[in-house]
Amino acid sequence: MSKTKGLIAVFTGNGKGKTTASLGLAFRALGHEHKVCIIQFIKGSWKYGELEAARHFSPLLDFHVMGRGFTWKSDDLDKDREVALEAWEFAKKTIHDNHYSLVILDELTYLPHYKMLDEKEIITVLTNKPAEQHVVITGRYASQELMELADLVTEMKEIKHPFKNGVKAQKGFEF
Amino acid sequence: MSKTKGLIAVFTGNGKGKTTASLGLAFRALGHEHKVCIIQFIKGSWKYGELEAARHFSPLLDFHVMGRGFTWKSDDLDKDREVALEAWEFAKKTIHDNHYSLVILDELTYLPHYKMLDEKEIITVLTNKPAEQHVVITGRYASQELMELADLVTEMKEIKHPFKNGVKAQKGFEF
Repeated sequence: MSKTKGLIAVFTGNGKGKTTASLGLAFRALGHEHKVCIIQFIKGSWKYGELEAARHFSPLLDFHVMGRGFTWKSDDLDKDREVALEAWEFAKKTIHDNHYSLVILDELTYLPHYKMLDEKEIITVLTNKPAEQHVVITGRYASQELMELADLVTEMKEIKHPFKNGVKAQKGFEF
Repeated sequence: MSKTKGLIAVFTGNGKGKTTASLGLAFRALGHEHKVCIIQFIKGSWKYGELEAARHFSPLLDFHVMGRGFTWKSDDLDKDREVALEAWEFAKKTIHDNHYSLVILDELTYLPHYKMLDEKEIITVLTNKPAEQHVVITGRYASQELMELADLVTEMKEIKHPFKNGVKAQKGFEF
């Protein structure tokens, strides 16, 4: 593999396509036979379709579901924070160990947003990541500091969403 | 397969992630063992990584590169238009024949934008598409009419782009 500069990309905003775009990047990297690790910080945001698709690429793709769900639904905030911080420790180790060309931290932005993790910790880890490793962060509410650090930032802006028009989620499309 | 309502989704805007998000949807649908057809209207927008990844899913995924490139680089606008219209005829037939759960018309929006194809033709074909088929359209400059017809519209808005900071495109990430 030729020497590359690893990029930090952020997909944020309230629209569809953040996680899907990161999945597309995973697909692309796997096509090059690069190793990819996806760490999911919010349980339930990736569904059956992706997991099945991911199996096609094993062992180049590792997929870790770490989170518990959204805090506003939670009846145990301490447990949420504990699980979130475990996920973050795992992510830090994954970045540091440098076994992957691409590490996707799916919905990481919710952790600092909901005060489960200090934003500065994320900035420090990303600043010191292995030079050739690409890191993708998805989720709403990306901080100004994170966007300043990133090489690529796209805001996915919702213009129209089918659920608002009474259309049900569709298998193989929405999940 | 249970009966579903096919959605029309549009990924537009000037940011990264439009084609990548559609690729992610393809990946998701393939995970459900749904058949997917990707038709690329602008040659060169999908690269080696995707094509290699696509092979993993054959024969569930068909991938057609139909276009010639951007018109502003062209020395033969008549030929561009001819090739674009051939691609469109192929897309119409693909939608009509209904062999796929998901049809991705990658960068189709450039055709009406550059006056190679009447927008009304696209609207008519989408309005009459098979009921259960999902269709995804990507590209800048999506028209108001197309966005009104769509069930889901996301604008990918460029906040920051690495090439503008002098960073080269990265294998396995950008292509």
